[in-house]
Amino acid sequence: MSQDIHRRSWVASANGHPDFPLHNLPLGIFSPPGASPRGGVAIGEAIFDLKAACAAGLFSGAAADAAQAASGDSLNALFALGAGPRRALREQLQELLGEGASAQPRLEAMGQALLPSLASCTLHLPARVGDYTDFYVGIHHANNVGKLFRPDNPLLPNYKHVPIGYHGRASTVVASGTAVRRPNGQTLPPGAEAPSFGPSKRLDYELELGVWIGPGNTMGEPIGIAQASEHIAGFCLLNDWSARDVQAWEYQPLGPFLAKNFATSVSPWVVSAEALAPFRTAQPARPAGDPQPLAYLFDEQDQAAGALDIELEVLLQSATMRALHLPPLRIGLSNTLNMYWTVAQLVAHHSVGGCKLQAGDLFGTGTLSGEHAEAYGSLLELTGGGKQPIPLPSGEQRSFLEDGDELILRARCQRDGLSIGFGECRGLILPAPSAG
Amino acid sequence: MSQDIHRRSWVASANGHPDFPLHNLPLGIFSPPGASPRGGVAIGEAIFDLKAACAAGLFSGAAADAAQAASGDSLNALFALGAGPRRALREQLQELLGEGASAQPRLEAMGQALLPSLASCTLHLPARVGDYTDFYVGIHHANNVGKLFRPDNPLLPNYKHVPIGYHGRASTVVASGTAVRRPNGQTLPPGAEAPSFGPSKRLDYELELGVWIGPGNTMGEPIGIAQASEHIAGFCLLNDWSARDVQAWEYQPLGPFLAKNFATSVSPWVVSAEALAPFRTAQPARPAGDPQPLAYLFDEQDQAAGALDIELEVLLQSATMRALHLPPLRIGLSNTLNMYWTVAQLVAHHSVGGCKLQAGDLFGTGTLSGEHAEAYGSLLELTGGGKQPIPLPSGEQRSFLEDGDELILRARCQRDGLSIGFGECRGLILPAPSAG
Repeated sequence: MSQDIHRRSWVASANGHPDFPLHNLPLGIFSPPGASPRGGVAIGEAIFDLKAACAAGLFSGAAADAAQAASGDSLNALFALGAGPRRALREQLQELLGEGASAQPRLEAMGQALLPSLASCTLHLPARVGDYTDFYVGIHHANNVGKLFRPDNPLLPNYKHVPIGYHGRASTVVASGTAVRRPNGQTLPPGAEAPSFGPSKRLDYELELGVWIGPGNTMGEPIGIAQASEHIAGFCLLNDWSARDVQAWEYQPLGPFLAKNFATSVSPWVVSAEALAPFRTAQPARPAGDPQPLAYLFDEQDQAAGALDIELEVLLQSATMRALHLPPLRIGLSNTLNMYWTVAQLVAHHSVGGCKLQAGDLFGTGTLSGEHAEAYGSLLELTGGGKQPIPLPSGEQRSFLEDGDELILRARCQRDGLSIGFGECRGLILPAPSAG
Repeated sequence: MSQDIHRRSWVASANGHPDFPLHNLPLGIFSPPGASPRGGVAIGEAIFDLKAACAAGLFSGAAADAAQAASGDSLNALFALGAGPRRALREQLQELLGEGASAQPRLEAMGQALLPSLASCTLHLPARVGDYTDFYVGIHHANNVGKLFRPDNPLLPNYKHVPIGYHGRASTVVASGTAVRRPNGQTLPPGAEAPSFGPSKRLDYELELGVWIGPGNTMGEPIGIAQASEHIAGFCLLNDWSARDVQAWEYQPLGPFLAKNFATSVSPWVVSAEALAPFRTAQPARPAGDPQPLAYLFDEQDQAAGALDIELEVLLQSATMRALHLPPLRIGLSNTLNMYWTVAQLVAHHSVGGCKLQAGDLFGTGTLSGEHAEAYGSLLELTGGGKQPIPLPSGEQRSFLEDGDELILRARCQRDGLSIGFGECRGLILPAPSAG
């Protein structure tokens, strides 16, 4: 583990903060009270305002370019600059905010103008999403869902060769906290001969890691796997809301469409690969004995860097639980170690046929379930397709999400008493619009 | 048929022009020689420059707003204004360019500054594509492709209830004339146990109608089918390039991904619903006796408006044919009458669960094959999955596209000796990048 993870900050709330210590420094877009959206960095219980910092001339060189690019209402321009300027910004931020920084008196004097409290700010989507792609790299999820349909042969023959993915809907990617309206749609009720229309009765979440893409590529010119990490801007949490009854009726032969495109929620902070690096494990992403990936998907350094080791948590709070002041119930605890493919493999695969990636594109990993029920990442898996509802502390039970339910995702890396976190990805379910 | 379809223009090349008479007036983005991209209108062998016309104060009221919105390098702002201003612009253009217009001497005096020749200009993608969706409404194509996999039961049970669609890749939608590089990818060769990597050996085109979306909707608030036509900005040709061998190996269970996302070509001109209206037929979109659509997909006026009746043509010219000065060979002649769903039904379906559409979104209809071989819209169908190659006049034959082949789509409406056209959608196949 590198030394700087232990470094303390003069921003007192950062030291020992479970999510945002000096080591993390995730980027996001926020509005200070009464002001316009701009880039910022979470530090303890405050946000470091990159626009204000730029105006005060706090950065130099590539870091100044990066901070300038992050002064607008999206991080796309910063993502497009690439890993070099982003890392330079991170280094100067660790200097400026570190204990004993020579700039400390000047920065403290700027007060709320430079470091507004997190609680006073509004958080936004960090970037305009160009294209959104959802993968399927959670091998236990693929297995669990496959078993529901094909008990003897749950994994399809391509799974261990192709990082399976499909295109999602960019226009409905929303920031944590945006309420999600239950979709109406066509379904074929069990035993019915003809479909009917109305609110989805099997509304679900999917626990995923999100990946923000940095600089893209020219159409027709793939990104080699050895270069892939330079094209990754950072990570977030992602909830791929899913209407299972709509999905079951519509998805043949071209995949999910309306079952997924009504909403996708992401956490607002972009956590960098640099912040996650000390928490990676040596555990290989794929079991020994599995087929060797094709050459375009294999890179020694990518394998040697180890797997992302991020603990992922799902919590549910119903309207009744809120009324009774019962805290959200943890219904899943998983880990990114359940990814069958590395993120570098996803970037290399996505572009290998010439598809153009662009700064601000978003990937979802697919549902990251573990092998056993306590680590499942969707209600579909947890309730066996709705057959075994889970009990809530309010005396209610859930097969699928009900109106008024709030679903909360959290993520954290922990080691040697230190931790960094992603913050939350929240969404409250609103009733469907009148189905006319 | 309305009267104005017979009206003549003082732009002599427009009268009797098979594609761009006064009645058509399609919108596009073009660059005059040595100048920046801006909006324009095709008229005969010229382009009416909306930026120059705006600067000269040629429009008033809503038409002036529309022309102003079309003066930049994309039509998104014009599309967002909606059908009212777009129709006002069309009416004033028909006035200005009509025979006997009082403005004629002044406009003629502006010469090439207002009406550069089409041949001297570069055409671009008409709008920045927000999201791109590909449907599957060509029922004969669905039948033909289904037969290759399921001879006894080619149409899946949902086909006549759900307008099947899926999300495509927006970043690789390109204008006609952009060369397309053959993709490398993973395939499972016949009989092989493990996949291999290299250039696609089964590269294909798909003949589709494209639909440009005008004003969008708020997330969570569907567009009712009765309002759908107000959300359609216009139509183009679309070629959904497809790597069949990549598709066969990757598409289970989530649909096509790398097999399609390397390129999608569109024709540059946006033909309006107003221009197409006189050519619609009373023929219903779906055969009597088929299941009645659910209420959200049914509108009396939409049915009464009749089906789009646009002749669609596919031509192929190989490198050898070009060298021998042999003209492109027509390999398909189909019609939009092969659409099982109306475009209004597509808009209503896409948004019914709350998905947000935005100005500049693009829909493809899916391959519009006819029932018989001369009307097939892909090589997959024409050659029976590659088994019966088609002969070319050069003595060559084709199972799938080869490097150096150029594929050309054309579309035209004809009635009573009058016609309007879409212009062309061209793409030349370049060799795959070295597969390392």
